Amino acid sequence: MARVRREAKSAFTEDEIVGVMRTILGGPAPGVVLGPGDDAALVDLGRHTGVLTADMLVEGVHFDRDAMAPRDLGFKAISVNVSDVAAMGGSPRFAVVSLALTADVDAGWVVELYGGLREAAAEYGMSVVGGDTSRAPVVVLSVAVTGEVAVGGAVTRAGARPGDRLAVTGTLGGSAAGLRLLRVDPRRIRGAAAAERARALIASHVRPLARVGEGQTLAQAGATAMIDVSDGLTLDLARLCRASAAAAAVRLASVPVTPGLDELRGLLGADPLELALGGGEDYELLVALPGDAFEPARVLLAERFGTPLTDIGELRAGEGMVAIEPDGAERPLATTGWDHFASSP
Amino acid sequence: MARVRREAKSAFTEDEIVGVMRTILGGPAPGVVLGPGDDAALVDLGRHTGVLTADMLVEGVHFDRDAMAPRDLGFKAISVNVSDVAAMGGSPRFAVVSLALTADVDAGWVVELYGGLREAAAEYGMSVVGGDTSRAPVVVLSVAVTGEVAVGGAVTRAGARPGDRLAVTGTLGGSAAGLRLLRVDPRRIRGAAAAERARALIASHVRPLARVGEGQTLAQAGATAMIDVSDGLTLDLARLCRASAAAAAVRLASVPVTPGLDELRGLLGADPLELALGGGEDYELLVALPGDAFEPARVLLAERFGTPLTDIGELRAGEGMVAIEPDGAERPLATTGWDHFASSP
Repeated sequence: MARVRREAKSAFTEDEIVGVMRTILGGPAPGVVLGPGDDAALVDLGRHTGVLTADMLVEGVHFDRDAMAPRDLGFKAISVNVSDVAAMGGSPRFAVVSLALTADVDAGWVVELYGGLREAAAEYGMSVVGGDTSRAPVVVLSVAVTGEVAVGGAVTRAGARPGDRLAVTGTLGGSAAGLRLLRVDPRRIRGAAAAERARALIASHVRPLARVGEGQTLAQAGATAMIDVSDGLTLDLARLCRASAAAAAVRLASVPVTPGLDELRGLLGADPLELALGGGEDYELLVALPGDAFEPARVLLAERFGTPLTDIGELRAGEGMVAIEPDGAERPLATTGWDHFASSP
Repeated sequence: MARVRREAKSAFTEDEIVGVMRTILGGPAPGVVLGPGDDAALVDLGRHTGVLTADMLVEGVHFDRDAMAPRDLGFKAISVNVSDVAAMGGSPRFAVVSLALTADVDAGWVVELYGGLREAAAEYGMSVVGGDTSRAPVVVLSVAVTGEVAVGGAVTRAGARPGDRLAVTGTLGGSAAGLRLLRVDPRRIRGAAAAERARALIASHVRPLARVGEGQTLAQAGATAMIDVSDGLTLDLARLCRASAAAAAVRLASVPVTPGLDELRGLLGADPLELALGGGEDYELLVALPGDAFEPARVLLAERFGTPLTDIGELRAGEGMVAIEPDGAERPLATTGWDHFASSP
């Protein structure tokens, strides 16, 4: 047990870290009755259905401290949770954050991390209301988010029906490409255009934006099932199919691959479509919609958010997934997403 | 980045772990609209004030896997969070659990852990509704709990007034003693009576019970401030004093030391009163009450729960803490609780 008596002095105490958290994250906010600093936070939750989710980011598994600024890490930790709320058609309201720190983390790093949490909370109109701090051999950032959705208005993974269109917001593969580019020697990225493309891809990896407004709009537009693309299109589609007891057919030529991947193919060392199908962490929404609901939903997303919604295929009776080739031929579509519990490389 | 493709086979996949979680933790429960397995859980939160809290248990910091059964670890992870809700006078309703596992953890361990979570949830009349799983170099168990309290009925750390009595539920020092006994060679514990005492102390460390009913009763009985004793009486009292802008005087002879500590003093290698003042993890409630509210509160706790409530001193104007010796002399009382951010031993 590494717990130590308080008498031994160090760079900062647990109460000092809590103080930093209160300074950066505290203050009045809508619905917050009592923010960080007491045993628990108090919030006014209204009369909606509550949406609860949690996601943990572990150093060396989900991020490398060398490659990721603490401000981005804080922002991303909120985004990945908010994305789960968005995938239910809900609105995020409150977050609690548990943070485990290694001995070599300095106070400035922690301040930047909380700054990123605050920035993300502002982006999504929510509040970080509390949490916990601890020591650990690696940095761990564990966030839980409470949100809300109109009673009966939530969209689960389970409601897709054969004949529904299958659609995805935004573009896919950018985050996986950004992760690869973080590991590339910057001197290998030649020219202003390539550098600009690389910056955009890296940004989509380190600072993803959850599709909250889009999720609500898709729910209102009649979405029958929805999931966020966190582990890769094929793996998350397989989950949606299993929950809905349906099969899916994906037109590969329609999958919206993030722009710039083809131009950087040499640096990426991967096929752009493969990154789009299996890369994960794009935090786009994969949605099933009745045929007549797709076009109105597409128009709404374009008008309200400037976000594309692309028809990539359909739900079918049965189980499993097939890819439809440009010539109309069909072949089984394998899941190629990330799974933390597959064996180590 | 240790993330690996799903194609590589291993003992279990992330989806299989989620399946185990759904089997053990799923099923209908009051207020649960949708339990584990989707992007987020859906809960009916009613019209109370929400209480949110989070606590993270890290292997090597908060527990040793060799010394702690996974069932106890799961139970304790819920209890330490529920204790924070209890310290506000609230009722726990829902939990989300993020779990990071090392490669050497087998499926049986995970099943036992979820069993402990479920057992604790049943104990407190709440539900575990979701969470996240990941890899990490050490096991990390991060829990967030959403509870509720009547609007205006919460008791914070900040309301204590000079002249209030200072009281504590149950007894203190047992958990710290249990932690020390976990490290003692069992052959050194001689005789049935000593073995029985040691077992009880170890149980209070590995399987603490949060004082939910007691917290609600104390809130109704007029508590002005309340905190759970998680980091040690003196450290948590210092927090209550700081939040309330008050000082405190503690009669050392009145502090309720857990029975059996004196008899095992040789094995513990520590003064029982020191363990009671600074040991931490007892999850008792430290409460400030107006003078005329103490005796009715004491009687209610005894009648309803069989839980003792002991008057250990008083709140005063000013700041800081003093110990009152049996002869009436006063001396400064130092904080001796645990702080994860003090420097390593």
